[in-house]
Amino acid sequence: MTVPGHLQRPGTTKVLDRPGDGRVVRRTVLPGGLRVISEQAPGTRSASVGLWVGVGSRDERPNLAGAAHYLEHVLFKGTRTRSATRIAEEIDAVGGELNAFTSKEHTCYYAHVVDSDLALAVDLVCDVVFDAVIAESDVDTERRVILEEIAMRDDDPEDLLHEAFIGALLGSHVLGRSVLGTSDSIREMRASSLRGFHRRRYALSHMVLAVAGNITHAEVLRLVRRRLTDRLTGAATPAAPRQGRANPRGRDGLVLRTDDSEQAHLMLGVPALTRHDDRRFALGVLNAALGGGVSSRLFQEIRERRGLAYQVYSSLASYSDTGHLSVYAGTQPDQLGQVATVVREVLDDVAVGGLTEAELLRAKGQLRGALLLGSEDTSARMSRIGKSELNYADYLSLEQTQARFDAVTGEDVALLAKELLAGTRSLSAAVVGPYEHRDELPQEVREVTA
Amino acid sequence: MTVPGHLQRPGTTKVLDRPGDGRVVRRTVLPGGLRVISEQAPGTRSASVGLWVGVGSRDERPNLAGAAHYLEHVLFKGTRTRSATRIAEEIDAVGGELNAFTSKEHTCYYAHVVDSDLALAVDLVCDVVFDAVIAESDVDTERRVILEEIAMRDDDPEDLLHEAFIGALLGSHVLGRSVLGTSDSIREMRASSLRGFHRRRYALSHMVLAVAGNITHAEVLRLVRRRLTDRLTGAATPAAPRQGRANPRGRDGLVLRTDDSEQAHLMLGVPALTRHDDRRFALGVLNAALGGGVSSRLFQEIRERRGLAYQVYSSLASYSDTGHLSVYAGTQPDQLGQVATVVREVLDDVAVGGLTEAELLRAKGQLRGALLLGSEDTSARMSRIGKSELNYADYLSLEQTQARFDAVTGEDVALLAKELLAGTRSLSAAVVGPYEHRDELPQEVREVTA
Repeated sequence: MTVPGHLQRPGTTKVLDRPGDGRVVRRTVLPGGLRVISEQAPGTRSASVGLWVGVGSRDERPNLAGAAHYLEHVLFKGTRTRSATRIAEEIDAVGGELNAFTSKEHTCYYAHVVDSDLALAVDLVCDVVFDAVIAESDVDTERRVILEEIAMRDDDPEDLLHEAFIGALLGSHVLGRSVLGTSDSIREMRASSLRGFHRRRYALSHMVLAVAGNITHAEVLRLVRRRLTDRLTGAATPAAPRQGRANPRGRDGLVLRTDDSEQAHLMLGVPALTRHDDRRFALGVLNAALGGGVSSRLFQEIRERRGLAYQVYSSLASYSDTGHLSVYAGTQPDQLGQVATVVREVLDDVAVGGLTEAELLRAKGQLRGALLLGSEDTSARMSRIGKSELNYADYLSLEQTQARFDAVTGEDVALLAKELLAGTRSLSAAVVGPYEHRDELPQEVREVTA
Repeated sequence: MTVPGHLQRPGTTKVLDRPGDGRVVRRTVLPGGLRVISEQAPGTRSASVGLWVGVGSRDERPNLAGAAHYLEHVLFKGTRTRSATRIAEEIDAVGGELNAFTSKEHTCYYAHVVDSDLALAVDLVCDVVFDAVIAESDVDTERRVILEEIAMRDDDPEDLLHEAFIGALLGSHVLGRSVLGTSDSIREMRASSLRGFHRRRYALSHMVLAVAGNITHAEVLRLVRRRLTDRLTGAATPAAPRQGRANPRGRDGLVLRTDDSEQAHLMLGVPALTRHDDRRFALGVLNAALGGGVSSRLFQEIRERRGLAYQVYSSLASYSDTGHLSVYAGTQPDQLGQVATVVREVLDDVAVGGLTEAELLRAKGQLRGALLLGSEDTSARMSRIGKSELNYADYLSLEQTQARFDAVTGEDVALLAKELLAGTRSLSAAVVGPYEHRDELPQEVREVTA
């Protein structure tokens, strides 16, 4: 293993991977603690640039709920040298995409452009992140846009369900809150609070600039140094990856959001592993076999054999100090109890008996193929290297990741399934559907969460 | 131009493009009229295989509404040599994706796999399309899945809005119907009807097998010939592209779907061009400037200046004999009238004054970049060549497409904008939102559709 990003000496560059197919992954630590990581991928014709900031909604004080995401919006409303319209015009003129997203532990500003427009992409991303004006009037206009975004989320049963589920699992813990904030917190947000959040949180030492595509590392460095010249000073070194202390809990067990919908939307799940847990590769295998593919137990039992859902899957989320495994299904309200029972049975089965040899093999094959197919475009490669650097201060190649999955044994998965899914542990659940009170929910749903 | 696909002699192969970067696009017409078109794209590590069938929901008789899509589902439920579970297991084992979609004029069965799994991909796609069993019991199980799919669509305001809008624009015309059918038509669908639809409609002469990725045309042909050996006989030649006779109309003007949603979801639009209309490149430029990007007039006026929506865009659809341009926005119900007015004003402005020189240039740049960035992965390339062959019996390279956009003049766009968008023409509209009757809709919405 190469030296972790936060221990690499400022001013130096390391080659992290050179698999022999022309690709090279390099990391440079610049003065001030900014890390630049790039994947040169000859044969592609585009470039993806992402500035990852190790700040998200969990870093907000309660009265500033939604600030990280609000700030992300406002930074596009104008910089010292560009109006919002000019920013939009410049990226549209080259047919590129310039956007951002905020999660609970990260914020990422990114641009995806034709390779010859790399300089513009680096300039625009740096401009919004470092030189935004955050004007009072723009904060007010954007307030309305964010209130629309919240209303839109509330109109999408699956999005609403995700929010309700994480509330059910984590209760009042800061991770249980929505990244969007609440209508109330958004209405009360002040420009000065956003400026303060930006000033305090957007430090170079908490940032990773990730670039992938038909680029060279030298060119990326030249562009970054030119653009950020005044800022690349000081003795700060990169921050270590965010580490949690414990598995936070604060569960409500069962959350209902009444909605006049055709389907009842159900999410069931359990706390799982942090992103630093070495068993996460075994968990990936377990999830693939459980509900990750069309041959998975949940898909086969619920959709193929019983026709109870159009969409049914399991998925994983991980944070620095916790994580969860969840199952989603949308079904007719009169079938909701049956679906909950089948999910519980499928989880019990795997908790008791683990996976078959064939399932284990198939899950590994599935992860291997998905890994390769999921890294075809430069945006996916950029995300992979940026997120990995911020989360682990490390790079794991496709081959290394695959080797970690391949090394998982049936015993590893069985132990984990037993620990996480055993029938004695109740499930957390959220339902979005046409029920006024929790009492109206089918008995089976209330039982699996009891 | 090379000879069109339906006029190419069976048994022959033509090179359609060889841009000099290693890529080659070739077309072979096989006995029986099946066309095989491939794009060899060295440097990629995957293969995408799509069997495009020139059949969609507009080919259904009214009592079979939803049959094309229902059939697409049922074909995956088992073939002469594979159960549904085995199909799912085989594709999961290599981490690939095997799926299909149905539209109004096409059905496409596709697989996306690592390049070394090309043979499996061709085999699976051919197996479901040609050798499915269509068993009574599977039709019954899948009936429930499709009813769930319809319910899910009804719970998504934006999906529901699209359906309502095309109903508003085309009324009772077959194109105005949902691809999914109705709950009633699905409940009554018989296995024998699906078998009949399959037998009558799935002829080799109406199919294009498109493959893109790290493959050779020779290898694709070898696999197809081996898999379909008995079927590749007879004197049938490829069908000519679907041609329409007129611009069908049957408009209702304004359709409301009552929904207890937070936002009011609005779609406004006009009939536009068929896919065979040469002015479609000018229309693409117009759409880009109107609502295709973040610097577009609609995005700037509605989101950036007024904060009236989180999502607002215009988009195009085209069929063999009609097409439309539509505008979407989601907003608070009390702002719906204002949004409708601003949309109408923006359309009026461009109908009267066309685009500025800067907008014209920017729209072309946007389309150029999007064209390149949108063809990075092998799935996108496969879709491009397959759809183009079915729609036009022709291949247009990225460079040729770009040249067509570049040749568009401000005058072309101005004439088209005047013809399609002039204020004297009323708009068709759909609203999904918390209104019981059309009378409750804001006056402005009723006015723009009057």
